[in-house]
Amino acid sequence: MIMTDRDYMQRALALALKAKGQTSPNPLVGAVIVRGEKVIAEGWHRRCGADHAEIVALKKAGDRAKGARLFVNLEPCFHYGRTPPCVDEVIRSGIQEVILGMKDPNPLTHGKSVAKLRRAAIPTRVGILRTECEKLNEVFVKYITTGMPFVATKSAQSLDGKIATASGRSQWITSEKSRQYARVIRDEFDAILVGINTVMKDNPGLNPHRKTKKLKKIILDTTLKISLTAKLFEGMDPRDCLIVTTAAASPSKRDALAARGVTVIIAPPKEGRVDIRWAFKELAKREITSILVEGGARVIGSALRENLVDKMYIYTAPKIIGNQRALSSIDGLNGTNVEQSVRLKNLTMKPLDDEWLVTGYVFRDR
Amino acid sequence: MIMTDRDYMQRALALALKAKGQTSPNPLVGAVIVRGEKVIAEGWHRRCGADHAEIVALKKAGDRAKGARLFVNLEPCFHYGRTPPCVDEVIRSGIQEVILGMKDPNPLTHGKSVAKLRRAAIPTRVGILRTECEKLNEVFVKYITTGMPFVATKSAQSLDGKIATASGRSQWITSEKSRQYARVIRDEFDAILVGINTVMKDNPGLNPHRKTKKLKKIILDTTLKISLTAKLFEGMDPRDCLIVTTAAASPSKRDALAARGVTVIIAPPKEGRVDIRWAFKELAKREITSILVEGGARVIGSALRENLVDKMYIYTAPKIIGNQRALSSIDGLNGTNVEQSVRLKNLTMKPLDDEWLVTGYVFRDR
Repeated sequence: MIMTDRDYMQRALALALKAKGQTSPNPLVGAVIVRGEKVIAEGWHRRCGADHAEIVALKKAGDRAKGARLFVNLEPCFHYGRTPPCVDEVIRSGIQEVILGMKDPNPLTHGKSVAKLRRAAIPTRVGILRTECEKLNEVFVKYITTGMPFVATKSAQSLDGKIATASGRSQWITSEKSRQYARVIRDEFDAILVGINTVMKDNPGLNPHRKTKKLKKIILDTTLKISLTAKLFEGMDPRDCLIVTTAAASPSKRDALAARGVTVIIAPPKEGRVDIRWAFKELAKREITSILVEGGARVIGSALRENLVDKMYIYTAPKIIGNQRALSSIDGLNGTNVEQSVRLKNLTMKPLDDEWLVTGYVFRDR
Repeated sequence: MIMTDRDYMQRALALALKAKGQTSPNPLVGAVIVRGEKVIAEGWHRRCGADHAEIVALKKAGDRAKGARLFVNLEPCFHYGRTPPCVDEVIRSGIQEVILGMKDPNPLTHGKSVAKLRRAAIPTRVGILRTECEKLNEVFVKYITTGMPFVATKSAQSLDGKIATASGRSQWITSEKSRQYARVIRDEFDAILVGINTVMKDNPGLNPHRKTKKLKKIILDTTLKISLTAKLFEGMDPRDCLIVTTAAASPSKRDALAARGVTVIIAPPKEGRVDIRWAFKELAKREITSILVEGGARVIGSALRENLVDKMYIYTAPKIIGNQRALSSIDGLNGTNVEQSVRLKNLTMKPLDDEWLVTGYVFRDR
């Protein structure tokens, strides 16, 4: 079988994907070094602080990198960060040609490494499997270009869009299989976020699927109603639990939480609640690059209303609750006309036994 | 290619399907006569009053039927109806073997023709592609075994189960393509049914897709609020418009409608509205074997609550209305627990551009 440049880039993407959910705030990067038609070294970025993918592969290749070709899904870094610039290492290595999936989306360094490689007389191409490369790093692209986290929402609803009966019963709309898959998805994010009402009503654990996954928990809690014995505090580093509140909260409660090591963030209020846009910006500053908003209906609605949401996961069970007063999966959007509704694009459907997961991206024209 | 019995039965089903929506109150039937491996005659039942499928095929085959095999998706009729019993014609024809998809579901004649064929020393097998045969005639099976019409509901909703914004705007939740497909589906039914509120709010035409299709229109209208100039009366035989009302309606309005030739049915009330179960039974007596309930949300809810619904069509657009007060697609089910919700089975998803149609059957365990 003859391997094409696309095949090598596909391999780089597959390597990058191995570290999904583990590299934040860094991107997912894979590198493949090819001599003739033979892959002589591979590497991927395993976690923040570890070697970048190119360095891993170059170290493995050693002298054999001379005259070889390097495939990377993302432009090598140009600036000193936690590690020295990879572009200089690539030049030093004697690599003969560089093939990249996309430029660094960071506007401050975008294209600078490509230019430097070309100045060093190394032919450099950009854009092989660009769409796939951008999709793989959708979190990083959003974070680095906007200074805001990539935000997804998760709902589990009946076919008619309800998350509970009129009496408030919600256990269980979706099956164990769907609920388990929803936990697996958590591991792709830096943090999970819920409103205080969800905590008080369901007392959820909000735990990741893999025990080794570091998943931050964020609670929007305007007046610090949270119980110090809430289940979500169990078995985790309290610093990874961030409660976003307002000045309206009791200072003694704030102190009690801080004394336990919980991170308390005082946000400005907006319409009597935490200003969610301010909160998300603050969380991005703390290097939280991606957030999964799991509810309730009003928190998801607020995030949508503020145009903060990128992606939606909607688990749907083949059940009809069939009642206007039963709890709708999303609340707080106040469009008068259908045209003002939030639209989704690039939809996918994943069957989960007799249920299914609809995934879509928020169509932005606002 | 060697043809199997299943292939011939598949052909009979395909022939039967040609008359979909046109044979009521009769079933869909196709017949194939095979000599050796060669199909020598085919037929299908085109409309009520026309020859049955077996007769069409036997007439075409003539003397060549002697010693041939007959494939029919449904047991030939045993009794005198609008035509003489087909089973006698089959015996007379000299057919050597009969292969049937299913017995006549009518409990009064179920298996009688099979027994008569066997008594006449014609080997007769039953059950080839039985599931497909039963599915094809789901309407007839329901009608003939229960004396009730086969009932489907149709909703067009956003991903979060809304059919209008909180301000009541509903144009348009779904796309022109979905709306057109929904009109195509109408042609499979004997009648379309809506509540008076839908008529007053939307003034729909409720017309079939094919101009030649005879589609009855049924309006549930407890107090005869319907306007004599409602759009749905246009361009149709007024007798095919059935208004189901109660004794609470004004007699003069009733007379005015009757004078125009519209069929007015007086139903007993239930909780201040038309007793929908009584109404459906009455409609079945009038040989309406299938009804498509197109709304509103409360009419669909009533039909579900009374366990009258067999199938649901839910057109879903990738939009989020996102408001608790926005109109839910189905209302009036009052389950306290999730377990009391209506469950659907045998789901299928049909993509319609970026929207999709979910079709499911009501799971009955009540």
